[in-house]
Amino acid sequence: MALIIQKYGGTSVGTTERIQAIANKIIDCRQQGHDIAVVVSAMSGETNRLIGLSREISRSPVAREYDVLVSTGEQVTIALLSMALQEQGQAARSYTGGQVRILTDDAHSRARIRNIDGYGIKKDLNAGRVAVIAGFQGVDENGNVTTLGRGGSDTTAVALAAALEADECQIFTDVDGVYTTDPRVVPEARRLSRITFEEMLEMASLGSKVLQTRAVEFAGKYNVPLRVLSSFEEGEGTLISYEEAGVEQAKISGIAFNRDEAKLTVTGVPDQPGVAYRILGPIADNNLEVDMIIQNIGQDGMTDLTFTVHRNDYDKALEILQIVAGDVGAREVIGDPRIVKVSIVGVGMRSHAGIASSMFQSLANEGINIQMISTSEIKISIVVDEKYLELAVRTLHEHFQLEQD
Amino acid sequence: MALIIQKYGGTSVGTTERIQAIANKIIDCRQQGHDIAVVVSAMSGETNRLIGLSREISRSPVAREYDVLVSTGEQVTIALLSMALQEQGQAARSYTGGQVRILTDDAHSRARIRNIDGYGIKKDLNAGRVAVIAGFQGVDENGNVTTLGRGGSDTTAVALAAALEADECQIFTDVDGVYTTDPRVVPEARRLSRITFEEMLEMASLGSKVLQTRAVEFAGKYNVPLRVLSSFEEGEGTLISYEEAGVEQAKISGIAFNRDEAKLTVTGVPDQPGVAYRILGPIADNNLEVDMIIQNIGQDGMTDLTFTVHRNDYDKALEILQIVAGDVGAREVIGDPRIVKVSIVGVGMRSHAGIASSMFQSLANEGINIQMISTSEIKISIVVDEKYLELAVRTLHEHFQLEQD
Repeated sequence: MALIIQKYGGTSVGTTERIQAIANKIIDCRQQGHDIAVVVSAMSGETNRLIGLSREISRSPVAREYDVLVSTGEQVTIALLSMALQEQGQAARSYTGGQVRILTDDAHSRARIRNIDGYGIKKDLNAGRVAVIAGFQGVDENGNVTTLGRGGSDTTAVALAAALEADECQIFTDVDGVYTTDPRVVPEARRLSRITFEEMLEMASLGSKVLQTRAVEFAGKYNVPLRVLSSFEEGEGTLISYEEAGVEQAKISGIAFNRDEAKLTVTGVPDQPGVAYRILGPIADNNLEVDMIIQNIGQDGMTDLTFTVHRNDYDKALEILQIVAGDVGAREVIGDPRIVKVSIVGVGMRSHAGIASSMFQSLANEGINIQMISTSEIKISIVVDEKYLELAVRTLHEHFQLEQD
Repeated sequence: MALIIQKYGGTSVGTTERIQAIANKIIDCRQQGHDIAVVVSAMSGETNRLIGLSREISRSPVAREYDVLVSTGEQVTIALLSMALQEQGQAARSYTGGQVRILTDDAHSRARIRNIDGYGIKKDLNAGRVAVIAGFQGVDENGNVTTLGRGGSDTTAVALAAALEADECQIFTDVDGVYTTDPRVVPEARRLSRITFEEMLEMASLGSKVLQTRAVEFAGKYNVPLRVLSSFEEGEGTLISYEEAGVEQAKISGIAFNRDEAKLTVTGVPDQPGVAYRILGPIADNNLEVDMIIQNIGQDGMTDLTFTVHRNDYDKALEILQIVAGDVGAREVIGDPRIVKVSIVGVGMRSHAGIASSMFQSLANEGINIQMISTSEIKISIVVDEKYLELAVRTLHEHFQLEQD
C-alpha cells in the first residue's frame, strides 16, 4: 500500500462529466489499496473568466484582491470532485490552501510555499478518506489568500508529496508522458519510461511544456518521484526521478526546441569590465526575459555580444539596444527575429566526449548552418534559421537513435 | 462621524458596471466622514450557476462540500468590489467569512452565527480603509466553511453591525423602502419612513420580501437600527428600529398579504389531548411548512382543525391527511387551494380596541366573505377566497387611510 498524490489540471476537470470520470479513476486507484490525496486546478476556462471580470474593473488590480478572486476557481473544483467521490460511495473531504494549511510568503500572485501542515490530511487518509486539495493557492502568516502563479498546482502537488512523504506524485495531463521530442515534428518520437530531474528541467525550460519548472525543481530538491500520465488514457506515463546507480543511461534522452526565439547582437563593443551589464541591465529593467547569452573572446579590444529573447520582445529589445549601443560606444546593433533553438539533453553526455562533434556533423551533412552554440553539463543548444527547425530535430532524433528503447 | 454597515444584494452587484457604481456610492458615503464596512452577496445568477454544477454531479451533495462550493460566489464579489474601490483611490480590504472570523455552528447550509471577531475590521476602519465582507458565510470551530442559507447576507450585515456596535445597518435592495402594502396592488401605497422591528417581522414573514426574517430578529435582539434603501435610487429609505416613547404611533403601519396559500381542514376530530399533534406531526415530518393553525372550541366531543400551507404543498398535505384522518378517527378532510391571507399590522393595535371590528366591517361593506381569522398582538390576519385579494387589500388600505403620512 502506497501513499500517492495525484494532480489533475484544468482540462482534466473541465466539465462535470470529466470530474465524474476523474472520481472513478481515483476510486480505481483506492481499490488497489493506495491512500490518495488529490490536487486539482480550476475548471478550464474558469480562471480566464475570473481574470476577465477583474480586467473589467481594473487594469492593474491590487494583487491581494486578485488572489482572493482567482483562488475561487480551485475551490469550486475541490467541492465538485469531493461530491463526485461521495456520490460513488467514496468518503472524501475538500481542503482550500488555507485549510490545509499551505503557508506561503506574502508575494501575492507569485507566492512561494514555506511550509505545509499535513496533519488534517493524514488524519483523513488514515480514516480511509480521499483528501481533495485546491492547487495553486495558500495563505500567508496573516491569513491572506495567496496564489503561486499560473501552473502552480503542480508545485502544490509536489510540495504536498514532500510534506506527506508520499511514495509518488502523479501529474495527470493531456499527454501520456514525456517524449524524446515533439511527436508532431518527429512521428517516431518515443515516450520515455524514465528521465532524470535534471534532464526534465532542461526539457521543460526548453519548451516541452509538460510540467512546471518549479515543480520539477521542488521534486528534485525533496527527492519526490514524479510521474507524468494521461488523464484520458491508460498507461504508465514517464517517471521522473534521480539517476539510479548501475542503470545504464542512454547518452541522449531527448531533443527540445523553441520556435519563438529571436537573436540580437551588439557588435564592436569595447571589451571592458561591466559592458555586458550595461547592455543587459536595461533589457532586464524592461522585464524582457533573456534566454541564451553568448560572448566570444574579443579582438583588437572589441567584442560582440549576442543574446536571444522571445520573438514577441524582439522590437522592444531592438529599440532599447539602439540607445544602449550609443551609450557604451558599440559599433552597431543587428538582429534576426526568425531563428529557433534546438537542444539535445541527456545526463549521459557528462561522461561521453564527442557527442557535440557528432551532433554538429550530422547537421552539417544536411547542410544546416549553425549560427550559435551554447552548452551546459547535460545539454547542447544550437541556434539555426527557423526554416531548418523540423529538419534539424528529425536529423538529430534519427542520428541519436532515439526511436529505439 | 458614524460607523455604518452597508449590505448590497446580488442584483446590486450583478455586473462589473454595477459593482463600480456601488464603489462610487460607498466613496460618497466615506466622503461624508463615515467609517464603512460593506457586506456583499454573490453576483446575481452566480449562486444558481454553482448549484447547477453541483446538481450535475449529485442530487443530494454532502452539505460540507456544497458550502465550500457556493461560498465562492461571495468571494468573487468581495475581490471585485475591493478592486473597484482601490481603482477609485479608496483603500479597501476584502474578508471571507473565515477571515473575519465569523464563527458559526456546524449546521452546514443553515448555520447560525455564534460569534464575530471584529478586530481586523476595526483596524482597517481606523486606518481609513473600507472593509468588504463576504455575506452568507462563516466557519465552524474546525475551520470548515459554513453558509447561513439563502438570503443570509442580511444576517451577516446585522450580526456584524452588532459586533462592531455600528450606528446603523443599511440594507440596499431593489426597492426604496418598506411600503404600507404592495404598490402593484395599491398604487397609493406609501413608503414608510419608520417602522418597528415587530411590525417589520410581521410584514416580512407575511410576504413583503424586503428583508430576511432572521436578520430583522437579530437586529431587534441587538438593537441595531436597520435601514432599507434602494441600490439604484437616492432616498432615505425606511428605518426599522424600536418604538420611540413619545412618538405618536399610527394604529396600522401596513397591509401584508400572501397569494400562495392553501387551506386544509380535518373535520369531526375527537376532541382529545394530543390530537392536534397526531395530525400536524406527520405534516412536519414531511417537511411541509404550516402557516396559520386554527382550532375552535369543540362541540359534542368533536372539533375541526384547519391549517394553511404553501399552495405547492397542498396535494402532498392532502394525501398525508387522508391517512392521518383515518388513524385519529376523524370524519373527513376538506380543503381549498385557492385562498389568500391578508393581514393588517401595527404596534398601535395593542392599545386601540375596535380595530378588528372596523376591519371586518369595511370588508363586509364590499361583500367579502371572511373564511378564517387569526390574531396576534400587533396583527390581524384573515383568509379569503383568492378572487378577493386585490379588493380586500385596497379596501383596507383606504379604510385605514394608509396613503396619508
